[in-house]
Amino acid sequence: MTETLAGTARRKSRRYSERDVLQLAAKAYSENPSFEVKPERTALLVIDMQDEFVKPHWTPFWVPAATRIVKRVKRLVDYCRRKNIPVIFTAFAETHSFLDRPRTGAFMPNRYKGKVPDDSSYFRDGRIWRELSPREGEVVIHKPSYGSFYDTPLESILKNLGRDTVIICGTLTNFCCGTTARQAYERGFKVIVGSDVTATDDPELQEAELKTLRKGFAMVAPSARIIKVLERNG
Amino acid sequence: MTETLAGTARRKSRRYSERDVLQLAAKAYSENPSFEVKPERTALLVIDMQDEFVKPHWTPFWVPAATRIVKRVKRLVDYCRRKNIPVIFTAFAETHSFLDRPRTGAFMPNRYKGKVPDDSSYFRDGRIWRELSPREGEVVIHKPSYGSFYDTPLESILKNLGRDTVIICGTLTNFCCGTTARQAYERGFKVIVGSDVTATDDPELQEAELKTLRKGFAMVAPSARIIKVLERNG
Amino acid sequence: MTETLAGTARRKSRRYSERDVLQLAAKAYSENPSFEVKPERTALLVIDMQDEFVKPHWTPFWVPAATRIVKRVKRLVDYCRRKNIPVIFTAFAETHSFLDRPRTGAFMPNRYKGKVPDDSSYFRDGRIWRELSPREGEVVIHKPSYGSFYDTPLESILKNLGRDTVIICGTLTNFCCGTTARQAYERGFKVIVGSDVTATDDPELQEAELKTLRKGFAMVAPSARIIKVLERNG
Amino acid sequence: MTETLAGTARRKSRRYSERDVLQLAAKAYSENPSFEVKPERTALLVIDMQDEFVKPHWTPFWVPAATRIVKRVKRLVDYCRRKNIPVIFTAFAETHSFLDRPRTGAFMPNRYKGKVPDDSSYFRDGRIWRELSPREGEVVIHKPSYGSFYDTPLESILKNLGRDTVIICGTLTNFCCGTTARQAYERGFKVIVGSDVTATDDPELQEAELKTLRKGFAMVAPSARIIKVLERNG
Repeated sequence: MTETLAGTARRKSRRYSERDVLQLAAKAYSENPSFEVKPERTALLVIDMQDEFVKPHWTPFWVPAATRIVKRVKRLVDYCRRKNIPVIFTAFAETHSFLDRPRTGAFMPNRYKGKVPDDSSYFRDGRIWRELSPREGEVVIHKPSYGSFYDTPLESILKNLGRDTVIICGTLTNFCCGTTARQAYERGFKVIVGSDVTATDDPELQEAELKTLRKGFAMVAPSARIIKVLERNG
Repeated sequence: MTETLAGTARRKSRRYSERDVLQLAAKAYSENPSFEVKPERTALLVIDMQDEFVKPHWTPFWVPAATRIVKRVKRLVDYCRRKNIPVIFTAFAETHSFLDRPRTGAFMPNRYKGKVPDDSSYFRDGRIWRELSPREGEVVIHKPSYGSFYDTPLESILKNLGRDTVIICGTLTNFCCGTTARQAYERGFKVIVGSDVTATDDPELQEAELKTLRKGFAMVAPSARIIKVLERNG
Repeated sequence: MTETLAGTARRKSRRYSERDVLQLAAKAYSENPSFEVKPERTALLVIDMQDEFVKPHWTPFWVPAATRIVKRVKRLVDYCRRKNIPVIFTAFAETHSFLDRPRTGAFMPNRYKGKVPDDSSYFRDGRIWRELSPREGEVVIHKPSYGSFYDTPLESILKNLGRDTVIICGTLTNFCCGTTARQAYERGFKVIVGSDVTATDDPELQEAELKTLRKGFAMVAPSARIIKVLERNG
Repeated sequence: MTETLAGTARRKSRRYSERDVLQLAAKAYSENPSFEVKPERTALLVIDMQDEFVKPHWTPFWVPAATRIVKRVKRLVDYCRRKNIPVIFTAFAETHSFLDRPRTGAFMPNRYKGKVPDDSSYFRDGRIWRELSPREGEVVIHKPSYGSFYDTPLESILKNLGRDTVIICGTLTNFCCGTTARQAYERGFKVIVGSDVTATDDPELQEAELKTLRKGFAMVAPSARIIKVLERNG
């Protein structure tokens, strides 16, 4: 390998060294995209803040860090409600007797198969944690997988609401939030991910996921900063 | 928080402690899903092993680790060709005068805007790196974004080829490979990601991405192990 | 035009005359595609046989011809149930407070706006007509538009059930049935449309729709013949 | 049946008779949706005006009526170009060695299998008929099936161009045009179909298709009227 690199370097003056490109990459991971955010074109997605993940001690799938962000998520939800920014909730729940779940989902290690007692009452009702209860008229999407857009009408709903920007909060950062962010990005949405209103089950992966999202998919910022941006442009 | 947890604990005997759930989660990150892999139902996806990422020193987007996996990717490609496992290549390239690119892509830090000289010859032709040149008749999909399934006919192609399993190799692990893995998972495919035949620009994010994929989306294994599994089931 | 045709004819011996091509086209409209139908790979879709369209006199959207096919649809449903061919029902109904309806739907003449008293109880509950009530465990998909695949998980459900063939019956032939047939065709399904178990509000359009479907999208046959084919291959 | 109807009628005063509903339906088939059309939000889709369908005598798939609308299509294309309304062309052509074609397409009667000499040069290059040649910079989408949206990035392109309205012209009315209209409708676009700038191989089916589209999917109008509407709102 080293020889090849050296050879290439000899033949060409205009060139990027390994150090050049790694520095560029490293720097980009610490930066944020910049795009204009218009509150009247924005919706808030509250991802999977449901009892299974948030209610303390209830299930083996409980994400303690998700319980810890509830207050901040609530503040963001309340802010959006006051500003007429639509709040849309999702939950991983029963849809069509589970017949629409991705085919290999049941094999995944995160199902804890054989490790915890089977409990078919989990991930069925998709009840949103009581401190974050949806209000009458707010959309709740029960979804069969991680991403909120696949096999659901979320994009149509956002179109009908005239929204081209989504703020993502909820859990788990590196599963449902991250997948939803990627899907929103590909569908042409401006995506904002709240760094302190998303939660996962491993602090290192929280950071890793946010780095990847920030470099290529989404603006990542703490919720106070998101509110400030919305406030300024409102 | 602690008080709430304690309160809940008092009221209920059957309960999961914070330590319980974090241990379960940590363990699951180190495990792999298990599902049957049939060579005659499998396709190999070689993601974005194109000059822009692989050719040493050519662009600021060069991923040195991608250059380093070429030999192993080649071995996997050759194995699949011998076994009549279809090999499908993708490249991030010009499609429809770039008019189909996700709307916010240009704002992302990974475009290095203002940091490197603009060069419109990049990501236009989608030339696969010469050591991995597609053979006559092998499908090459030029795609407008990270994921190989969105806005492309990849799923139709796999259906027509009778494949329900995809092996993913290429670059960048936490962008095009990871997004493609998530999309394949949601479309019901069995997904296998090669741990030593994927590459990115940050070793920690390589590991982080594989951990997330392994826990919830894909079987993650070194290429030698993937070949062994295919061989055994062939 | 005639001159141009004549000119072209002079220059080239191998050529198709206007009469040739129109005869070929006309003949193809009267033919059927042929493909193998395997009962164990087939599902029955019962499209929108809901009170709004079927229950006599209840709504201005009542389709009398739909009421007339109930018995034959029932026979087909019963046959499929006996043979363990999954029966999937759809209904045009409330989903997400109607926020996921196609944006221009409300403007369409088939909504009879201003012509009939507004009745918000229509197309909300999606109750399947009582003679065709779904059984416990049978999938019912509430959909926001004509096509049963768009913005719904129908394709995932069919994948999970291992089905590559769909039989379509229900109403209206040239709206929900026809759109669903086109969508199934494009997703690679073998499509069978029952000529005497579909119904619309205009006999000429019933025939016209079936002609178009038969030439390019689906096998079109009376229900007795569909049952015979399933029986033979069972 | 009659008895059931009578019975229902007796029980309830507010009711719709068979005559009522058929009259409502018949009337709706002759009407048009009304929605606002903004030229700066509109794109023109020229569907499959390619040599295979338009060039006189060349293939058995020639649609003489398509050749006859060329002048009017040209006028519409020229008008849109003058007004900076993007013109997007589609063609049914080779994409990925035909591996992405819907699985049952080859079985359809409209392929004329066994009736005409096989000619693999058809539907490969997707050459637009010379009188309608796309200009430099105009998008041409080669598609594997009837609908212009499925497995193509057409929706992303329209989003990027800021278009929420599409005008559809081209051929065949009841295959590629009609399917594209249905897909555009479901994706939330305002759809306008040109009645004298679409063509098919059977005059009755031309009318039947336009009736169905007009009642539930699209505004249908002659091209002179479409131009007048654009002019008025320009």
